[in-house]
Amino acid sequence: MKLWRGGRLATLAGDRGWGLIDDGAMLVDGGVLRWVGPSAEAPPADEVVELHGALVTPGLVDCHTHLVYGGNRAQEFEQRLHGASYADIARAGGGIRSTVAATRAASEAELLASATRRAQALMREGVTTLEVKSGYGLDASTEARMLRVARQLRGVDVRTTYLGAHALPPEFSDADAYIDAACAWLPALHAEGLVDAVDAFCENIAFSPAQVARVFEVAGRLGLPVKLHAEQLSDQGGAALAARHGALSCDHLEFLSPAGIQAMAQAGTVAVLLPGAFYALRETRLPPVQALRDAGVPMAIATDHNPGSSPTLSPLLMLNMACVLFRLTPEEAWRGLTVNGARALGLRDRGQLVAGQRADFCLWDGAHPRELAACFGHNPLIERVCQGGA
Amino acid sequence: MKLWRGGRLATLAGDRGWGLIDDGAMLVDGGVLRWVGPSAEAPPADEVVELHGALVTPGLVDCHTHLVYGGNRAQEFEQRLHGASYADIARAGGGIRSTVAATRAASEAELLASATRRAQALMREGVTTLEVKSGYGLDASTEARMLRVARQLRGVDVRTTYLGAHALPPEFSDADAYIDAACAWLPALHAEGLVDAVDAFCENIAFSPAQVARVFEVAGRLGLPVKLHAEQLSDQGGAALAARHGALSCDHLEFLSPAGIQAMAQAGTVAVLLPGAFYALRETRLPPVQALRDAGVPMAIATDHNPGSSPTLSPLLMLNMACVLFRLTPEEAWRGLTVNGARALGLRDRGQLVAGQRADFCLWDGAHPRELAACFGHNPLIERVCQGGA
Ligand SMILES: [Zn+2]
Ligand SMILES: [Zn+2]
Repeated sequence: MKLWRGGRLATLAGDRGWGLIDDGAMLVDGGVLRWVGPSAEAPPADEVVELHGALVTPGLVDCHTHLVYGGNRAQEFEQRLHGASYADIARAGGGIRSTVAATRAASEAELLASATRRAQALMREGVTTLEVKSGYGLDASTEARMLRVARQLRGVDVRTTYLGAHALPPEFSDADAYIDAACAWLPALHAEGLVDAVDAFCENIAFSPAQVARVFEVAGRLGLPVKLHAEQLSDQGGAALAARHGALSCDHLEFLSPAGIQAMAQAGTVAVLLPGAFYALRETRLPPVQALRDAGVPMAIATDHNPGSSPTLSPLLMLNMACVLFRLTPEEAWRGLTVNGARALGLRDRGQLVAGQRADFCLWDGAHPRELAACFGHNPLIERVCQGGA
Repeated sequence: MKLWRGGRLATLAGDRGWGLIDDGAMLVDGGVLRWVGPSAEAPPADEVVELHGALVTPGLVDCHTHLVYGGNRAQEFEQRLHGASYADIARAGGGIRSTVAATRAASEAELLASATRRAQALMREGVTTLEVKSGYGLDASTEARMLRVARQLRGVDVRTTYLGAHALPPEFSDADAYIDAACAWLPALHAEGLVDAVDAFCENIAFSPAQVARVFEVAGRLGLPVKLHAEQLSDQGGAALAARHGALSCDHLEFLSPAGIQAMAQAGTVAVLLPGAFYALRETRLPPVQALRDAGVPMAIATDHNPGSSPTLSPLLMLNMACVLFRLTPEEAWRGLTVNGARALGLRDRGQLVAGQRADFCLWDGAHPRELAACFGHNPLIERVCQGGA
């Protein structure tokens, strides 16, 4: 029993509001918050930690990343700014294919070393729960290697997602044939305990709704929840498809239709908004935030860390970009990076400072959580506690 | 005599190109680079530091900041996202006036404590030279206090700029009368050794070209160089005016005209681009980067750190935003944050890893400086050396 007391708690308790407790305390036992309330009313404890007025929030949940891969794409970034087109770069073997080649060529140890550095950068900004997708292997052995690496990340709670249906690998010319293969690999990956959820990329440059549906059917037979990269560049009806499969989340959603919103609202599917990719791709079409709000669809935000369209390791920058670019309120952005991020992973045991939740929390130099959303490119983390109260 | 060897040097020598030396070395004596070249050709030294392949760049120069102030404006940020207009906020005493009130109310020790925390955040990202403006006092004593605080910042080379002509303070209704006062304060501030340059805000919401010209004439009589916040929200002809006064830099420049560009090119005035404010204000009009390039106007970039329109402490994020938002090449962005940033401060002794320059440099975890421009929200700094080779 350990009592943390004298902090300014932003509990995010309930469905709305900051849940501020000005001089608050948390009693932690066995990695779980046992009691949260005003310091003056705190129960006795074996050990007491003084927070000296630090701002306390739930630990951050980064619910959408592609953290494991080989190589980087900085050279392409430079080439584009010198005038090369995406087509020029693709012809030269660039784009996602260069990441697939570099990932296939990398050993498990190499992938673990680079992914560990990235995970540590996320942890330094307060991330306590992290989702990691496969999808740069696109063959059985490399997809497995990526997921094994994700399972070996330490110091953060990792949820893995199988994203075999990310792109068509170079050795396939027929997308249906590749989907057959990607579906066939899944049971063995699941049997090895490597898969917490199944994702796909539904887009005219990736896979069709019919192909995605086949992946989701296999996931369903294995009892695995699904998610979807949906309506990023066009309206494919992917969100409605995912909702019919009871998806945990649909992600990106710039071109989401009213019908898609209604389907997500009915299915309880979370909308994961990814402002980093929107920014880096210089997109102009905004996700329908007000319609999502009106329909009561929970909104999460995430880094979407990947080497191409969102090479960021800053969840705090996403907090700001969600406000500046997508016009979320600071509270919505915070809920997006905590309780709703957890919900997008099917997790109900974290994301709020409430008795019964995991003792994952962050101490910050600040007076109010809105300050962290108003700044950009600044990290006032004092300490991150990940189940550390145990 | 200390030799740093075995690094991947991005010297930025000359007028273009990265100036890469794959296995490079630097000989440092008395805080100055005495020799730079391949490790294999390095002269003997008393002491040798192995760089183990780290990427080495010049130290970063943040040539435009408003780092000293009281309070913060996170609450306004939140209010705007809940639908309040700028006019609503101004009526409630918000905007720059709230920062002026908080700065006037803060003691020198309080201002120094908060500015020190901000300067340290900039230093953690590699800043070795930092410009700090006054302009939130708008009275003689507070302007002096801000500049004295800037002079007391440690661990970084600070250049101070008097920005009395930043905004009209609440106790004045007549802008001309305030300009008289702001001009009258300058000689004493200069006599106290507090002023390295003089700046003004030329805009229809701030001061007219005629008012700015009066400030510049006083600066000229004192032998102080000038700079200008110019053509941010409209074309006021400020850049041409500044160029006529031999300005070191014109800053912002989204609405810069062809005539302004020609005047800057002829005067050798640096264009300081501020992507953080462009991003946070959701501006859509881009500065005329290609025309500046064509005219041979040197481009710098900076954080413009301030509590309202650019609350960022990340020069590395500005590197990325300069590329993503303004389409600078990574090399242009790097020169903007090093050698051209120095030039915007009238400094020719830093910003390149070349014999004779100050020994201000950074060691990074990376293989090429373009990687730092391609990522956003990530800081791979290993070590910052600020005149530290001495
Ligand atoms: Zn993704
Ligand atoms: Zn400014």
